[in-house]
Amino acid sequence: MTSTDRPPARAWPPTPDFDVWPVEHLPAAAETDGRIVTVTWDDGRVSRYHAIWLRDNAADPATHSPATREQVGHPWDLPADLAVTSASLAGDGSIEVAFAPEGRTLAYHPGWLRALDYSNGRHDDLGDIAPTYWDCRRLAAPPTFGGPACLERDGALLEALEALMEYGIVRLRDMPADETAVQRFAERIGTIRNSNFGFLFDVKTAPADSRKAADSNAYFAGALAPHTDLATREYEPGLQLLHCLKNTTRGGRAVYADGFAIAAHIRRTDADLWRAVTQIEWTFANRSPATDYRWRAPLVVLGRDGEPVEIRATTFLRGPLNVDFDDVEAAYAGLRAFQTLAAGDRFAMTFDYAPGDLIAFDNRRVLHGRTAFDDAAGERALKGCYMEREEVLSRIRVLRRARRANRAA
Amino acid sequence: MTSTDRPPARAWPPTPDFDVWPVEHLPAAAETDGRIVTVTWDDGRVSRYHAIWLRDNAADPATHSPATREQVGHPWDLPADLAVTSASLAGDGSIEVAFAPEGRTLAYHPGWLRALDYSNGRHDDLGDIAPTYWDCRRLAAPPTFGGPACLERDGALLEALEALMEYGIVRLRDMPADETAVQRFAERIGTIRNSNFGFLFDVKTAPADSRKAADSNAYFAGALAPHTDLATREYEPGLQLLHCLKNTTRGGRAVYADGFAIAAHIRRTDADLWRAVTQIEWTFANRSPATDYRWRAPLVVLGRDGEPVEIRATTFLRGPLNVDFDDVEAAYAGLRAFQTLAAGDRFAMTFDYAPGDLIAFDNRRVLHGRTAFDDAAGERALKGCYMEREEVLSRIRVLRRARRANRAA
Repeated sequence: MTSTDRPPARAWPPTPDFDVWPVEHLPAAAETDGRIVTVTWDDGRVSRYHAIWLRDNAADPATHSPATREQVGHPWDLPADLAVTSASLAGDGSIEVAFAPEGRTLAYHPGWLRALDYSNGRHDDLGDIAPTYWDCRRLAAPPTFGGPACLERDGALLEALEALMEYGIVRLRDMPADETAVQRFAERIGTIRNSNFGFLFDVKTAPADSRKAADSNAYFAGALAPHTDLATREYEPGLQLLHCLKNTTRGGRAVYADGFAIAAHIRRTDADLWRAVTQIEWTFANRSPATDYRWRAPLVVLGRDGEPVEIRATTFLRGPLNVDFDDVEAAYAGLRAFQTLAAGDRFAMTFDYAPGDLIAFDNRRVLHGRTAFDDAAGERALKGCYMEREEVLSRIRVLRRARRANRAA
Repeated sequence: MTSTDRPPARAWPPTPDFDVWPVEHLPAAAETDGRIVTVTWDDGRVSRYHAIWLRDNAADPATHSPATREQVGHPWDLPADLAVTSASLAGDGSIEVAFAPEGRTLAYHPGWLRALDYSNGRHDDLGDIAPTYWDCRRLAAPPTFGGPACLERDGALLEALEALMEYGIVRLRDMPADETAVQRFAERIGTIRNSNFGFLFDVKTAPADSRKAADSNAYFAGALAPHTDLATREYEPGLQLLHCLKNTTRGGRAVYADGFAIAAHIRRTDADLWRAVTQIEWTFANRSPATDYRWRAPLVVLGRDGEPVEIRATTFLRGPLNVDFDDVEAAYAGLRAFQTLAAGDRFAMTFDYAPGDLIAFDNRRVLHGRTAFDDAAGERALKGCYMEREEVLSRIRVLRRARRANRAA
């Protein structure tokens, strides 16, 4: 069928969300055995839906509030003998389902119903972006985008955020070099994560006897080995933004490395080291008179599917190792291998920060560090903040939704 | 030995932290085979430490910054042929260890060394508090403490926070009924978690046509089934504070239930339901024109040890179930069982909020809800915020450290 055959979008039944569901196929037939509704589409595909699933996802006002689109009717309150008494096609291409014992007939949007078919395998409901692992042969510099465009245009922002999820790092150039630019960019994405380092934090040398100097090694001019921030927390921050305001010192080069690529390299090359970095838990512990955050985790945390989901490498905040006696030397061997790779030529991407550069990176994947700098020679100032991966993913979904709506319009 | 035999605390070697390490035993002998240092204590206990572990945890300024107590020397930079050439007792009871090939001798604090012995099994380095599961027979009301005392006295605060970690809920009474009291209490603990609902949020009825009314079902006067907040996020908030400022309506009773106790009940009574609530993933998805947070998780998330670590029950923010076809009805059966228990007489603790009550609860364990209220009859206003479990645990550790220091002094 051609697009001119379609009824206008506003004619479709409501959906239990604020999303946009292009209708690319129409149902050709619908039938039921009481428990399952079977829909045959105009391209021959057959989709099956359970009665309880259809009833739970009804978009009527007694099930989903029209204001919030949140559930107000709950499936655990439905009759235990819920059944479908009929399933049929309406004239406009939507699907009507009658439920007993309620005696109600509810209508379903065909674009929504087709997209959410779960009977032909799971669909991609999170919209996850698969990571591309990198070393310096693959990626000599961060994927780079124009900062002002990302501040102003949704299309540019979406492109940068998709690259951020794929590579774990992007660089925005020519951002305004003012104190609040990093916050303005962050709020284009979502909510900033507060921490004991503040809502925004300054990375510059602090006077050696100051209160701030006691907070972190980052506030000295020394080198920082590649690391992730706040592995001391159960919830390691998923995203870090670092915005260069000034850089007239010598040294202080940026160092970034893809922890997932390092993990994959270890997995390929040494089973003992792989066991050490994925199975032996370090105790991370911050050092402070005022706080005492601790968390136990291996350097490389694996997800249910056995792939890395996060790196825990705040290696200068390791508390005393507290594991099986026979694992101690293996743990140190794993740490040495991991950190040597992270700082070595193959995996450590290095470059200079220019004023106006903003680096956004996945702090649970990409390690960051710096070479030492000479703070007598000039001034070096970065402004930073933390966020979560989920803020980026939420923004990507909303921007993609808007793109779908524009295309559908 | 008696306490008067001990040298003053200031004489001990430094430790690589800001902690307090009472000396309850002194070493009687120390020896080494080059790779392991073996210490025999005055009570006969034998502790063994690896050379690399001792060297990594040295408290000298080249290894740990005296200002930050963070590592500045790294174990992966140490010579690969690191060995201990001698281990001996100093006159004051500390232990001196000489390392080759560096040719350096480093001293260790006996209280610290004894406490961190890992050769006789792991010690409790996180200071975790074991949960006590509850139903209404066990706990008829939340453990209750005086609010003003918790604001002013560390001992009272510690007692309340320990109860919070054990039971997942506490009630503070007689808090000042002003707009910032919840923030003042939160900041006695640590950092408030920002969210798209704001730094602090108001739970009161919003005009039906307002922008805020579209944000959440919580802003209506209807009943809310027991739930956790923000299961839509990868990082579900670990703590929620709700402070009652006004309550002159009829209804709106508080409902709380221990999700871990409900999970344990299901585990004991029905293997099919247990599989459903722990293995089948719901897709949680918020509904908003501006954000689109999603996360897949079962209702009950198990940790590595097979025990529940969190409940994911923002049941009015379920997106369409997207799992194996044959799991759909099982998932709904699990949800029905879980929510029916959560709202039933055995597990649902109910009480009225009085102005000045502040409920702090573990949002990853304890479900909260309310009965419907009549907002024509009066006004009901709660002020709330989110935090993380790790903030509570950090504060508990710092308060316990201060108590140890007071006792040692």
